[in-house]
Amino acid sequence: MKIATTIAQARALIAELREERRASAQGSAVGFVPTMGYLHEGHASLLRRSRQENGVSVLSIFVNPIQFGPGEDLDRYPRSEEADLKLAEREGVDVVFLPSVDEMYPEERRTTVTVTGVTERLCGASRPGHFDGVATVVSKLFHIVKPDRAYFGAKDAQQVAVLQKMVTDLNLDVVIVPCPIVREADGLALSSRNVYLSAEQRREALVLSRSLREAQARIERDGSVTSRAITDEVTQAIQASPLAEIDYVELLTFPNLEPLVADREMADLRRSGGSVILALAVKFGSTRLIDNAIMKLKEADLYA
Amino acid sequence: MKIATTIAQARALIAELREERRASAQGSAVGFVPTMGYLHEGHASLLRRSRQENGVSVLSIFVNPIQFGPGEDLDRYPRSEEADLKLAEREGVDVVFLPSVDEMYPEERRTTVTVTGVTERLCGASRPGHFDGVATVVSKLFHIVKPDRAYFGAKDAQQVAVLQKMVTDLNLDVVIVPCPIVREADGLALSSRNVYLSAEQRREALVLSRSLREAQARIERDGSVTSRAITDEVTQAIQASPLAEIDYVELLTFPNLEPLVADREMADLRRSGGSVILALAVKFGSTRLIDNAIMKLKEADLYA
Repeated sequence: MKIATTIAQARALIAELREERRASAQGSAVGFVPTMGYLHEGHASLLRRSRQENGVSVLSIFVNPIQFGPGEDLDRYPRSEEADLKLAEREGVDVVFLPSVDEMYPEERRTTVTVTGVTERLCGASRPGHFDGVATVVSKLFHIVKPDRAYFGAKDAQQVAVLQKMVTDLNLDVVIVPCPIVREADGLALSSRNVYLSAEQRREALVLSRSLREAQARIERDGSVTSRAITDEVTQAIQASPLAEIDYVELLTFPNLEPLVADREMADLRRSGGSVILALAVKFGSTRLIDNAIMKLKEADLYA
Repeated sequence: MKIATTIAQARALIAELREERRASAQGSAVGFVPTMGYLHEGHASLLRRSRQENGVSVLSIFVNPIQFGPGEDLDRYPRSEEADLKLAEREGVDVVFLPSVDEMYPEERRTTVTVTGVTERLCGASRPGHFDGVATVVSKLFHIVKPDRAYFGAKDAQQVAVLQKMVTDLNLDVVIVPCPIVREADGLALSSRNVYLSAEQRREALVLSRSLREAQARIERDGSVTSRAITDEVTQAIQASPLAEIDYVELLTFPNLEPLVADREMADLRRSGGSVILALAVKFGSTRLIDNAIMKLKEADLYA
């Protein structure tokens, strides 16, 4: 495993490996997992998939300042370079790209990649500018790494939708591969931010995955349930936890992230085989957690 | 010469040529000249340079709707596909990419590449949204063609500055090569839009290059001349033409395109060896022409 701290090193190492593996059985496709570090089993699942599907596997670790808003947790975002490198090594990563902030933003930045529409609701609404920061840094990383496939966790479902739209609109020659949410045995979605939680918050945070599971069961069971009934139920379940402070609970179409209104209510979406996402962001103390369930609605559910 | 009308064709043809020329003397570097067609000797000079410096030469012809504002000349922008292809063939182009609007913008576009700062003055001020359209389409074309070098005429000097900033900020792996303005024998800068001019407008339009030349001579001659004196002189010269309607006459630092104020006046810039651009946009009837002169200021000029 090689470590690159500069853009030039990363480019050279990746080009060299690509060349080296041209004729090999693994092939020379580059798989890429961009992260902010403090890696957990969720990231490991992305790295394994990248390793399986590509001849060259690249991981980036960069806590991207421009996707944090004022008052967010940029300064205390958890870091553990040593453990991250161990995990990367274990998962067969070929190149780790570990740039400094100055390497990524060396002069006054004037260019921004903006995706509208899919960024208007959910985290886009509560974290203004966040997805501009994400789209811009991922665009930079794609230009540096030039991956054939890039792997993202479905926990950040809106991020996946935003990046997929960016890739389509800008004709980036990369396949976005969304991967399933990885959870603790008790259901808590893995997140680098879970480390902030106290034992009590950690216990109460289970309400997120539990209420998502219950809502999902109700959607499967009750063909005529409305989006409003679902979000009300989830909201009430979460409000029952005294430590939880809801940022949003929303049920939207997926991947366009539009509200379910009139002819896009759930019963109608079932007829067209549409997908929905039930997404939530909830604060426990100063720690903001997100979780979601993406469901393809089936006509059959109506008669289940 | 091959013609591609779809993105997939263009990618396949370019990848094939790159592969084919890997081991050849010319090398497999890709040179790219993005245009809106109606090609003239200015474009030809870019194609020749691309041909000289690269193993594979790609031309795109696409009248990009999103860089035209309401009331601009999108609908009547001149086109001449047949003559363009002849010129391209003559200049040794390998692949012409000729997409339709639907091929470039197949679904509702939500992604925009925005460059601030260098877009605030000159054409950025009088054509709001224009450079978002340019940066976005060039970013798309770069992702499709994946050039090593891209060639642009210095007549669109602000475009060059904007694209250079975009490439730097987004780490695009392409070298922007600005090429000198090509002029008619009498000084008029070549432009596809010159075809709109009546004989009388065409004659009067010579005031642009003439006043630029005179200003340049004065800057070289007079070490203490101010930016204001220069722009006043050029403005007066152009106003003397009854058919000319000035959009802007500006002298700015280059490539940052900032106004010359206080410690960035010309005398100071001479000491630091800075560059300036004298840029103008003038309408003759409904035809808007632009022209400019970029000058590296030398201390020696002070004593000339």
